[in-house]
Amino acid sequence: MERVTPRTLSGFMELLPEQQAKMEIMREALRNSYALFGFTPLDTAAIQSAEVLLAKGSGETEKQIYRFMKGDNDLALRFDLTVPLAKYVAANYGKLTFPFRRYQIGKAWRGERAQRGRFREFYQADIDIIGDGSLDSMNDAEIPAVICHSFRSLGLSRFTIRFNNRKVLNGFFAMLGIEGASAGEAMRTIDKIEKIGRDKTLILLINDCNMTETLANELLDFISFEGTTAQKIEMLEGRCGVNTLYDEGVAELRRMTECLPSFGVEATNFMLDLTIARGLDYYTGMVYETIMTDYPEIGSVCSGGRYDNLAEYYTDKKLPGVGISIGLSRLFYVLDEQGLLNEAVQSAPADVLIVPMTEDLPYAAAVATVYRAKGLRTQIYTEQKKFKQKLSYADKLSIPFVVLIGEDEIKSDSVSVKNMVTGEQTLMSAEQSATFISEALEPAYNEKIIREKI
Amino acid sequence: MERVTPRTLSGFMELLPEQQAKMEIMREALRNSYALFGFTPLDTAAIQSAEVLLAKGSGETEKQIYRFMKGDNDLALRFDLTVPLAKYVAANYGKLTFPFRRYQIGKAWRGERAQRGRFREFYQADIDIIGDGSLDSMNDAEIPAVICHSFRSLGLSRFTIRFNNRKVLNGFFAMLGIEGASAGEAMRTIDKIEKIGRDKTLILLINDCNMTETLANELLDFISFEGTTAQKIEMLEGRCGVNTLYDEGVAELRRMTECLPSFGVEATNFMLDLTIARGLDYYTGMVYETIMTDYPEIGSVCSGGRYDNLAEYYTDKKLPGVGISIGLSRLFYVLDEQGLLNEAVQSAPADVLIVPMTEDLPYAAAVATVYRAKGLRTQIYTEQKKFKQKLSYADKLSIPFVVLIGEDEIKSDSVSVKNMVTGEQTLMSAEQSATFISEALEPAYNEKIIREKI
Repeated sequence: MERVTPRTLSGFMELLPEQQAKMEIMREALRNSYALFGFTPLDTAAIQSAEVLLAKGSGETEKQIYRFMKGDNDLALRFDLTVPLAKYVAANYGKLTFPFRRYQIGKAWRGERAQRGRFREFYQADIDIIGDGSLDSMNDAEIPAVICHSFRSLGLSRFTIRFNNRKVLNGFFAMLGIEGASAGEAMRTIDKIEKIGRDKTLILLINDCNMTETLANELLDFISFEGTTAQKIEMLEGRCGVNTLYDEGVAELRRMTECLPSFGVEATNFMLDLTIARGLDYYTGMVYETIMTDYPEIGSVCSGGRYDNLAEYYTDKKLPGVGISIGLSRLFYVLDEQGLLNEAVQSAPADVLIVPMTEDLPYAAAVATVYRAKGLRTQIYTEQKKFKQKLSYADKLSIPFVVLIGEDEIKSDSVSVKNMVTGEQTLMSAEQSATFISEALEPAYNEKIIREKI
Repeated sequence: MERVTPRTLSGFMELLPEQQAKMEIMREALRNSYALFGFTPLDTAAIQSAEVLLAKGSGETEKQIYRFMKGDNDLALRFDLTVPLAKYVAANYGKLTFPFRRYQIGKAWRGERAQRGRFREFYQADIDIIGDGSLDSMNDAEIPAVICHSFRSLGLSRFTIRFNNRKVLNGFFAMLGIEGASAGEAMRTIDKIEKIGRDKTLILLINDCNMTETLANELLDFISFEGTTAQKIEMLEGRCGVNTLYDEGVAELRRMTECLPSFGVEATNFMLDLTIARGLDYYTGMVYETIMTDYPEIGSVCSGGRYDNLAEYYTDKKLPGVGISIGLSRLFYVLDEQGLLNEAVQSAPADVLIVPMTEDLPYAAAVATVYRAKGLRTQIYTEQKKFKQKLSYADKLSIPFVVLIGEDEIKSDSVSVKNMVTGEQTLMSAEQSATFISEALEPAYNEKIIREKI
């Protein structure tokens, strides 16, 4: 028979079982965090009409998108989870209750040039809260709480949610007399300050945004103001009373920072950063980025913000919202690369391997049934192999317990439980052994998927 | 602005939130069942090389597949979960430990003619056990136990797993002198007996399979033998000793039926049915179908069987396996259509809606944090609406508890818990209310997603 090489395309992630188990633990932790904050799961179609996906018509997206004809239909794969959400909300407007809080953890596709840590098929884990006509800013204030809970449930505590408010920036631009296209250009320029430094940003502001050196320096002094979040807000409040938009933004920042401690967000986990603008024109209010404290070079692992119009390409309804997105495949990749995936989590395919040593398989099956009823993930190994190979199977898969069932065990209505780490072997009843194994595994099941090095 | 109609393509399922929540409950139940039987989660790429997916080169598949070029790459979307599994196992052969037990719950795509209950983008929920060179028949014997556990965890008890063994059929054909192409034709023909009846099957066997009427009747008498599973096996054993393949198949059937009670599979949930052949040539041993007792017209909701060569198009390694597949999107659709989805499951986006009646939002945030720490899915409602509309929000979303926080509550460091079903309102501390609500919701969380009518 002529054979086809079983290759996986470049840029497509197919993990080995142990890694996949860890990815599942991450997905489950995020599902649970998002659900705790009252977000409902949503699942939009992967294939959409190309016309729908490209309604916004961005040039860069159009190049990357997987687009194809099927019969007369011009189709495409979703390239993010936001555009299909916008379509969904517009299409089901009359059937939804607002504010509509949804999460979606799903794949999206972009035919980018493949490079390390960039995938053409990748998971995103998004939440959004969509209002009908308006959306109270308390929703924005809650977003860092969701981010914080999500990362802590993954096991990460050393991270900073950096936030800012575009109303403050735009209002301040207006106060400086920078408006229209210059304001947009200035927004994109100051976003670069962390990467390129103050001096180069100054030059860009002067050359590209037509600012005088004095004006540019005033802006840079403003966004570079050093201090705690509380001190920064105090500084911001000192300039209130001139521009309404600015005042609104400052009020939102105060409202949020007042709530964060009550939401359980530790002071070390959030920081007002006036240099953050987020490139997209899309955002209009609060913006968020999340940096892993010990790995700033990775960049933001969870970003988002407030926007005014989710679905303007599909409906005349005004649907403001606030949302964030975790690039899950990329996050998994960098965690793995940095050695931060916790080896102690339970990533084996089973908790117990039952090895029958006689032909009495119903006995083994009955023991398996006891274990499964107690929530233990159980395999029975019956391949015709030598005893050593049977143990080696458990070993290779890191299955922590092997249960041996020979004639003696059957006669005494018991099992022999072998701890694969210590080698210790104990005879007990099936019921007893289920409890014994469950208790022994509890620490592993309480482990979180990220283990920080510090 | 020119707007695009926000349409969802025909044949693509995008559920409303309440339905989606129910679908998620189904997916979670299946994940848990599969995991309990020691299957590890796998996630293959949705996009594969067309050459890989079409290695087998079936004409019907080729017409349905979504295939497209991206740059120089001839790509396609997976049309099932088995072909990507075969590729994965062949590609990672050296890194996997066999038997390799994996589950995958994921989407597949087929551009079929759209019709009720048939989707172009659909979930399948598959398990497979792959051996290296050989695979003990105890694995096949465990499959009905997984099916049984899965459906019972969904809430279905009125179902029958019908099974048969192709070795018995092929062996019996040989005993009757039916071999080669005629045997294949006979296999496909007897598979139709349930649909078309004995008389028409007899005619087909005579006309299409070149059997004499006597021979055809002998075959039909054999497969139509009436009795319990035990009686059928006894009948089968009466014919042993002539054909090795037949004898093997009968031994496998006995081994399995002996184990099923120990696996907790009730006698009402399984039945040897000698008329079942499963159309595909692919299967070589045990075959399984699952029928909902009260809805036989729906056909099999979970099917599969034993095969000899998973990955023969990619590797010369012999990789026998056994697996089953649940067509999840279709199952969800028919359950919904038949009114079998349980309205009592917790499909609301939240367990509690906190409604602050003052501007003291940190207090509300702190209460939310207490609830979330106790595992209660919690929303805070702060939109500028009338009190009635706030309650109506909870009502529309079926959020079972509203927690009111006014000045009195804040003064007394407490909350007012309103049961949205009874209307009853109680003042208590936040901690107390968390326990109170959790306990009240326990029955809903113990509900299963299917509620049988009988």
